Amino acid sequence: MSSFSRFTPLIQSLPATVPFIGPEAIERSRGLTVKARIGANENGFGPSPKAIAAMEQAARATWQYADPENYDLRVALAAHLGITPHQINVGGGIDELLGLIVRMVVLPGTPVVTSLGGYPTFNFQVAGFGGRLVTVPYKNDQEDLEGLLEAVKRENAPLVYLANPDNPMGSWHSAEEIVAFTKALPETTLLVLDEAYGETAPAGAIPSIESLIDLPNVIRTRTFSKAYGMAGSRVGYVISTPENASSFDKIRNHFGMNRIAVSAALAALDDKAYLEETLSRIKAARERIADIARANQLSPLRSATNFVAIDTGRDGAYSRAIVDGLMEEGVFIRMPGVAPLNRCIRVSVGPEADMMLFEEALPRVLKRLDQGSR
Amino acid sequence: MSSFSRFTPLIQSLPATVPFIGPEAIERSRGLTVKARIGANENGFGPSPKAIAAMEQAARATWQYADPENYDLRVALAAHLGITPHQINVGGGIDELLGLIVRMVVLPGTPVVTSLGGYPTFNFQVAGFGGRLVTVPYKNDQEDLEGLLEAVKRENAPLVYLANPDNPMGSWHSAEEIVAFTKALPETTLLVLDEAYGETAPAGAIPSIESLIDLPNVIRTRTFSKAYGMAGSRVGYVISTPENASSFDKIRNHFGMNRIAVSAALAALDDKAYLEETLSRIKAARERIADIARANQLSPLRSATNFVAIDTGRDGAYSRAIVDGLMEEGVFIRMPGVAPLNRCIRVSVGPEADMMLFEEALPRVLKRLDQGSR
Repeated sequence: MSSFSRFTPLIQSLPATVPFIGPEAIERSRGLTVKARIGANENGFGPSPKAIAAMEQAARATWQYADPENYDLRVALAAHLGITPHQINVGGGIDELLGLIVRMVVLPGTPVVTSLGGYPTFNFQVAGFGGRLVTVPYKNDQEDLEGLLEAVKRENAPLVYLANPDNPMGSWHSAEEIVAFTKALPETTLLVLDEAYGETAPAGAIPSIESLIDLPNVIRTRTFSKAYGMAGSRVGYVISTPENASSFDKIRNHFGMNRIAVSAALAALDDKAYLEETLSRIKAARERIADIARANQLSPLRSATNFVAIDTGRDGAYSRAIVDGLMEEGVFIRMPGVAPLNRCIRVSVGPEADMMLFEEALPRVLKRLDQGSR
Repeated sequence: MSSFSRFTPLIQSLPATVPFIGPEAIERSRGLTVKARIGANENGFGPSPKAIAAMEQAARATWQYADPENYDLRVALAAHLGITPHQINVGGGIDELLGLIVRMVVLPGTPVVTSLGGYPTFNFQVAGFGGRLVTVPYKNDQEDLEGLLEAVKRENAPLVYLANPDNPMGSWHSAEEIVAFTKALPETTLLVLDEAYGETAPAGAIPSIESLIDLPNVIRTRTFSKAYGMAGSRVGYVISTPENASSFDKIRNHFGMNRIAVSAALAALDDKAYLEETLSRIKAARERIADIARANQLSPLRSATNFVAIDTGRDGAYSRAIVDGLMEEGVFIRMPGVAPLNRCIRVSVGPEADMMLFEEALPRVLKRLDQGSR
């Protein structure tokens, strides 16, 4: 009775699911307090001090809308990448850009290919436009390029999603494999190549900009949320052909960017030394997480990201119990959503204080679980 | 050749228009510098010092995503309005929320009613989802409630947009008129009641929250962009039934809010004294703009907003010449897009320094135009 009666059939049919539950909601519902926030693949090393200074300086000017063309940021990104500003469009994080990409391609019933257990927010967007998700299982904890290609061809799908490096497993493919996959795709299939974790990947994992820039069926997505430590700022961008990049202008929220966030992104991009420093810290923290896992007889997976998937050697119920148990200790982590990936827990990097909390809590939680299962 | 070939027919058919050209783009294209930024209905009096302090303090925590449930802000808004948090949903400014509302109702060909010359961003969203805009001319520079109602019924339209107070004319209807209009609407028509300028309206113009809160076919939109002086922060919200408010959760970008902006909104909402001070300043600046208009033999319209529409007594070409001429002097203003509204120019309030620049530039521009036309 108290819902409007003429929402579209699609909207009426959608479930009330969300891509992720935030740590704040868990705190509220369980009456707990997060002490180590290492579950959402945020980057607790934080943004560049120059970005923080830029934010503080921009606060007073927040009465002004941001430039709807995001000109300065596109120019800076173009210089950074060695392309033109016309090959870039900016949005409120990759999540928002994924919504726009899906909207540009998906009609009710359109088949869309992704990996089973891949990024939930992409799936949320596909469902939200009525697309039909076609999922391909991971292979050896990697997204299965052959399987994705086969599904694309079988379904004549106009859209396929691939994250490299991958979330939630932290795995990656080589640049050569990615380029070969891309070239093997039908021209009538658009690849969303999500490179949210591109900066943290090892050498040789990320295709050069030139190798893909002329392909009209590739859109690469990148962000300031991960390596740059600015998840709360919501700044992401797409790299594609000028024609594809400009198609976002037809439907995007032109006055949608936060002005302070844009200033911060400009400053962060300019502080290459801080990025290098952060990348070293992320690498060290990944090793730290892996060591903690091994010390508890768990098996860390290799990671190209700012988090580590840890194989518990058991099933999803066991992983869930670890996640819930750690949360009781104030340590917020997450886990993959589907089998067999959900035999793992997923721990994001963070400063040493967070690593110590994890190191202290994990054996306690595992011990409780072992005692409980006897 | 360099555009992906399988974007939806709708996307392919959309023109490359934008709702508004930003002042920064005009500066770039014409090689000019804005000295008085009084064209985008921003609020140059700026945000509360407490909001600025909150932004500065939140800058360091921008490595964290904002709470996807926006719980604290919804609780604060609910207390402010005397309703429950479930009757509120938060988004990145009213613009983003309008996009979601349109998406919830509009399919290709769906008739949508608005005023001819009303808010262009709403029209942009309707076009972006393939809706068919049905426009009703203003009547005495007010949105024509009878005409809108008639169009809704004639077209069996599921969606109608009404701004009260209105943009771009600054006019308003009484709360009684708005409530009567709302009650006269078919239950199968959703009213978007855009109250972006609600805080600056005179007593008696804004319906009480209670008067409309139980109607499933009404969604009210509000923002921190105008009276609160935080346009660049991008924080808006909707007020409706719990069921309608929760339907946004099915499709919104859950991790879309800027964390600093949410902190700032909380602080701004709490600083009622600063809001009162700002409202006095806005009122005084409206009078100042009206005085400047009259001193130049132009006719200011009464305004319930943070801007004043000024009747030039001539046509759209003349208004355009004034807008362009003022920009040459560094004074950025705008004008309505269609006749007969475009006989007016539209000047936003701002600090006295901006008012003085406008006061100095306007007679020079008018004089040049008069000389040119002889």
